[in-house]
Amino acid sequence: MDLNPEDGTLAYELDRAHVFHSWSAQGALKPMVIAGGLGSTVWDFDGNRYLDFSSQLINVNIGHQHPAVTAAIRAQTEVLTTIAPAAANLARGRAAQRILERAGHGFSKVFFTNGGADANENAFRMARLYTGRDKILSTYRSYHGNTGAAVVATGDWRRMPNEYARGHAHFFGPYAYRSEFWSSSPEEESVRALHHLERVIVSEGASGIAAIVLETIPGTAGILVPPPGYLAGVRALCDRYGIILIFDEVMCGFGRAGGWFAFQALGDVEGETVVPDLITFAKGVNSGYVPVGGVIIPPYIAEAFEDTVFPGGLTYSGHPLAMASIVGALDAMADEGIVANAERIGRDVLGPGLRALAEKHDVIGEVRGIGVFWALDLVADPATREPLPQATIGALKAKLLSLGLLPIFADNRLHVVPPCVVTDAEVAQALAIYDEAFASISVLA
Amino acid sequence: MDLNPEDGTLAYELDRAHVFHSWSAQGALKPMVIAGGLGSTVWDFDGNRYLDFSSQLINVNIGHQHPAVTAAIRAQTEVLTTIAPAAANLARGRAAQRILERAGHGFSKVFFTNGGADANENAFRMARLYTGRDKILSTYRSYHGNTGAAVVATGDWRRMPNEYARGHAHFFGPYAYRSEFWSSSPEEESVRALHHLERVIVSEGASGIAAIVLETIPGTAGILVPPPGYLAGVRALCDRYGIILIFDEVMCGFGRAGGWFAFQALGDVEGETVVPDLITFAKGVNSGYVPVGGVIIPPYIAEAFEDTVFPGGLTYSGHPLAMASIVGALDAMADEGIVANAERIGRDVLGPGLRALAEKHDVIGEVRGIGVFWALDLVADPATREPLPQATIGALKAKLLSLGLLPIFADNRLHVVPPCVVTDAEVAQALAIYDEAFASISVLA
Repeated sequence: MDLNPEDGTLAYELDRAHVFHSWSAQGALKPMVIAGGLGSTVWDFDGNRYLDFSSQLINVNIGHQHPAVTAAIRAQTEVLTTIAPAAANLARGRAAQRILERAGHGFSKVFFTNGGADANENAFRMARLYTGRDKILSTYRSYHGNTGAAVVATGDWRRMPNEYARGHAHFFGPYAYRSEFWSSSPEEESVRALHHLERVIVSEGASGIAAIVLETIPGTAGILVPPPGYLAGVRALCDRYGIILIFDEVMCGFGRAGGWFAFQALGDVEGETVVPDLITFAKGVNSGYVPVGGVIIPPYIAEAFEDTVFPGGLTYSGHPLAMASIVGALDAMADEGIVANAERIGRDVLGPGLRALAEKHDVIGEVRGIGVFWALDLVADPATREPLPQATIGALKAKLLSLGLLPIFADNRLHVVPPCVVTDAEVAQALAIYDEAFASISVLA
Repeated sequence: MDLNPEDGTLAYELDRAHVFHSWSAQGALKPMVIAGGLGSTVWDFDGNRYLDFSSQLINVNIGHQHPAVTAAIRAQTEVLTTIAPAAANLARGRAAQRILERAGHGFSKVFFTNGGADANENAFRMARLYTGRDKILSTYRSYHGNTGAAVVATGDWRRMPNEYARGHAHFFGPYAYRSEFWSSSPEEESVRALHHLERVIVSEGASGIAAIVLETIPGTAGILVPPPGYLAGVRALCDRYGIILIFDEVMCGFGRAGGWFAFQALGDVEGETVVPDLITFAKGVNSGYVPVGGVIIPPYIAEAFEDTVFPGGLTYSGHPLAMASIVGALDAMADEGIVANAERIGRDVLGPGLRALAEKHDVIGEVRGIGVFWALDLVADPATREPLPQATIGALKAKLLSLGLLPIFADNRLHVVPPCVVTDAEVAQALAIYDEAFASISVLA
């Protein structure tokens, strides 16, 4: 490709002048300018190349600029670029079919949204209307999206069945390395976390709880792979109390954890697959090539809305370009063995490599993960597990960038989340960069 | 194009089997299958063609399959299809620049979202954090999106500054034809609606009100063009009480009302332009070719987040494909005089044509609108203004479809909302179809 450094300057200047950024104080921002990408690599307008071990916001599962997905989008633009949700179109039916084939027998329909937040919005809506109950339980260490008021400002009939931002309660999930339950092993953490959850259910009033929503593997909160038995225990509590179980697979689904869904990947490890009632998705389903998300619905919940109006909807629900990109991405992921690659990389290459790094560098307090979904819990002191200070994190981030790796951090954690197409050689290169970067901050600390 | 009726059957069957639809009881749905479109026309797989006087969900302002927009999307897929919001990219800066040029001098930055609901979410967030106040006032006849719980389910730090679905209060806006204020003219409706709004402000506690959000022209609620002086009066009340004024231009913006923004189009008619503090948009900005929305921000609000973190964000904020489609759409709309066409069509062709229809058919109680944004308020009895029953609406809808026009109804209203590119000949054809359809139900009634 032809790269013009002046375009990079222009992009930076336009951004700083006119673009208001997410999750940021705007004044100090110095956004990196990305000119292009391919597979696990991105580059800027000066030709600097970076291994993308962030997958942007952990969404580019199929890698950058996968030709099958961009071709599917281009082909759809020649046919039908946009259409109202009330109409049917072929791309939408095919996308739903591809998703349901991967979710398994328990599911029959897909409701499409614009992203992960509104996927969760609509899963809550379904659970509340299906159960006739109000409360939603979720963990303190979680992220389920950032919407909470638009429908309450709405004045028409669509407001009343949707005034939902009441009746949310939070509980603590398992996190053996930083236990809230004084446990001394993952197994004990699981047992105690389930005891705690049941105490919260009973205390909040089981008969008023519509749903428990869990990221199958909490992501931004630290890639907290649930300890053995935890998800099965939550499923049993939901069954006992008539509560809908929602797995939020927005970040962990579609290859990230080394399976089509994280609950399937964890089931392969544990030998028992825990199936939720509703699944929410976004990101990996089409690697973010077009904004999209959705809810995967079982027959028993879909049927509750056969004769009753579902009071939720979006102008862009089932958008043709998004649907075409889903079909293109999921077919390519299957044809090219991309999910299997993520599983193998995690098991045989990235997981062992990160654990070897932890042996060398005391700053790595714990290595957690599965597939291409890993976190290094960075500590100032391995004994106290005191989080590494942000100043040191900043130095580490700058060092990684200078060595040609685009990292992603959350609090005191380095999240290691390359695309699912990452190769053995790219992992080796990244591990060498992490090694050098950790060595540089050990000197500082 | 080649159309295969079997593809239509397949699309219908996949849809009914696997797609969960917006705003519907799922059982009785018989979705129309759309195969393709061009300009103001769509067609199915059997080759039946329909004048699209719905613009789908009032979003295809530039018409179907505009070649400049689909080409812009295709070109962007060759360069960079997706990128995290934290990075800068050229398409995003250019899209923000195009939008700000049209919004006028009072505005300096754009925050991009996935659609209209999360645009309003983030406008509320800005208004609340900027003012330090809690309440949001909006009208009973309004639609501002359908999200209200995801951030409350979230557990991490992003929840606390965002627990917003409290503190919403509703008031009645002006609607001279069905006045809540016993008024006898639009001017009196305006004065009384402002009196009512000030009574609500004072009663709710002016010092606790962060924002008033208004669709500049309420859309789904009935295309309720505000009476003379109303918006200026609301602006004055906001100034008096230190309240942020948000104009929701999701449906009425970007050409729909015959101006880049409806507040500008209304200003041209009234001779005085009322400028809000924040503008929210979606739909027409790129005619829904890629899901996108956003908030247009003035310097004084942007500056409040220079050193303070803005606690809102989205994975797909400023998505490159969406940005490219905005640049493509807004440039083509300017180059081809599409907004001017919408203004002229409304003033000289569609408005007069609809008023002539109302003279012929008693069922049309009132004609309201501007640009390509019109509603016919349908009544069973012109004297009592009793809404036309839904059974008759159903017959009217079926008749319009059989005559080759895709209509859109809301309650007892037929909304006449063609693309902004609609031609005089297409309007003449549509008026003839409406005429024939109204004649057919007059016989029934």
